[in-house]
Amino acid sequence: MQWYFVAVLLTILTSSQGILTTLSQSNGKYLYDYATVPFLAEVFKLLLSTLLLWRECRISPSTRVTTEWKSVRLYVIPSIIYLIHNNVQFATLTYVDTSTYQIMGNLKIVTTAILFRLFLRRRLSNLQWMAIVLLAVGTTTSQVKGCGEASCDSLFAAPIQGYMLGVLSACLSALAGVYTEFLMKKNNDSLYWQNVQLYTFGSIFNMARLVLDDYRGGYENGSWWQRLFNGYSITTWMVVLNLGSTGLLVSWLMKYADNIVKVYSTSLAMLLTMVLSVYLFNLKPTLQLLLGTIICMMSLHMYFAPPNMLVDLPTQVRAAPESLKEVAVERRTDS
Amino acid sequence: MQWYFVAVLLTILTSSQGILTTLSQSNGKYLYDYATVPFLAEVFKLLLSTLLLWRECRISPSTRVTTEWKSVRLYVIPSIIYLIHNNVQFATLTYVDTSTYQIMGNLKIVTTAILFRLFLRRRLSNLQWMAIVLLAVGTTTSQVKGCGEASCDSLFAAPIQGYMLGVLSACLSALAGVYTEFLMKKNNDSLYWQNVQLYTFGSIFNMARLVLDDYRGGYENGSWWQRLFNGYSITTWMVVLNLGSTGLLVSWLMKYADNIVKVYSTSLAMLLTMVLSVYLFNLKPTLQLLLGTIICMMSLHMYFAPPNMLVDLPTQVRAAPESLKEVAVERRTDS
Repeated sequence: MQWYFVAVLLTILTSSQGILTTLSQSNGKYLYDYATVPFLAEVFKLLLSTLLLWRECRISPSTRVTTEWKSVRLYVIPSIIYLIHNNVQFATLTYVDTSTYQIMGNLKIVTTAILFRLFLRRRLSNLQWMAIVLLAVGTTTSQVKGCGEASCDSLFAAPIQGYMLGVLSACLSALAGVYTEFLMKKNNDSLYWQNVQLYTFGSIFNMARLVLDDYRGGYENGSWWQRLFNGYSITTWMVVLNLGSTGLLVSWLMKYADNIVKVYSTSLAMLLTMVLSVYLFNLKPTLQLLLGTIICMMSLHMYFAPPNMLVDLPTQVRAAPESLKEVAVERRTDS
Repeated sequence: MQWYFVAVLLTILTSSQGILTTLSQSNGKYLYDYATVPFLAEVFKLLLSTLLLWRECRISPSTRVTTEWKSVRLYVIPSIIYLIHNNVQFATLTYVDTSTYQIMGNLKIVTTAILFRLFLRRRLSNLQWMAIVLLAVGTTTSQVKGCGEASCDSLFAAPIQGYMLGVLSACLSALAGVYTEFLMKKNNDSLYWQNVQLYTFGSIFNMARLVLDDYRGGYENGSWWQRLFNGYSITTWMVVLNLGSTGLLVSWLMKYADNIVKVYSTSLAMLLTMVLSVYLFNLKPTLQLLLGTIICMMSLHMYFAPPNMLVDLPTQVRAAPESLKEVAVERRTDS
């Protein structure tokens, strides 16, 4: 399976995630407890991965499976990071409004690339760094509040703690992704075995979260397992399965591609959702959405296109002698 | 004189043009007839160029000066194009509002590059084409009307003729620039001699315009030469000299650099003016101004940086075998 097919599929499913979630509402409200969705998605991923692992072990006896606790215990770390991240997210939202929070969320594109370089030691060319910044700029541009919007709080008016927490949130998001990629690429274990470890801890943490919510709520709504499927429609199940599927695709990309591919997939998904919302939910098409889309497309091309396709300078060379050397060697293509 | 010094100077002077023009107003009104300013600027450029030509001929007897009418008559063409352009501009503004017009004005960045390629046969790499589009996107982004602006007409709501005229206006703007570059580079004539021809026709056309304005106004305000300097303050003279100076710099760039350099200078000047206006005129700093500035800076780097500085891929090569060939030849620089 080529990584770009998986990336495109992730883009489509991430986009449909937002749309399905909106469709699963009734009159703008959730008839079900939304907190149960991530838990069921983890369970779904765990069950499916277990099944696929079992099948793989039967077919191919040489399937690598590292079961030493020293290695297995590392798979709890992403769940811990996500836990801290969720709490930081919550704290940030006490200082800034949701649109400011959404705009700050674009920083995780840049923090992911920085940790990609620092932690995984993957080097990017200057052009690729510019592409990363442009991706963040492009997504932010599409989110700029236009003329005539109802509420108009200034982006720059929140307390400084809000911005600091926003940056921290972006760093934690990046850390979780980068650490997961580190785990998946650490050895040649079966992808499904790695998933099983990851999602076992994920399910435990999500379950603990539901238990904690019950405890804090004073068991008003009964225990979580009693109301687990309350208000679930077909659409809600689709939300669960969709969320689980995107998680599995991300896992695959972490092992066979990298975090930058994932970041591009999810960022373009955000744009795709906005474009589809113009047709599905009568969102007003804006100039900034068009501009943001153009910028992100450029960024995609700048990052992934082979260099010789970008900078093939035909016969007229304007710059320093070094580039003359390149022109002599590169295969000339007529533009 | 290196072209980048001239380009930076042009950026500064173009930016100060807008600021000086605003400063020359009294309570938002012009105490002088603004239509006299371009005319006096042409005369200033003509006088200065004549002086510099005379000086050059004295110092260097081998100064090339083509005086055949066959060649001289071509220098009227830019003035004709500008005349048509002004009329199209006027017609466009009967269909669209000024902010839509300003945004469509950014198209001339792209049309200039297209005519640069088609008419002057100057080839650009794919990356440079992307840089051009990003420059137009960046300037447009900075002009996106934000939340809380007073008037909120939709960008997409004008009649189709408005957009067609806007595109035509951008094409004419580009044609004028590209034809001027063609003239300046056609032969090795003295720059000042070429300027003298250009500005003689320019002065004549501007004078004709003033005469026509008088005629249409029924000579209510007397003849133009009677009210030429009415209401002129020091600041107004600075506006005239500034406008003349930018014209001379553009002329130099047309001969010793090219239209793309000029386009970058004037686009960045627009951003510089907006940034300065935040401090000078209390313009509200917006997210779109920040985003637009980042995009234009990236564009500048992408267009002008030597390719090997952009795509130096260090030891880990991700792409097709062709790039391996490049890495072997390129001078490795540590990022």
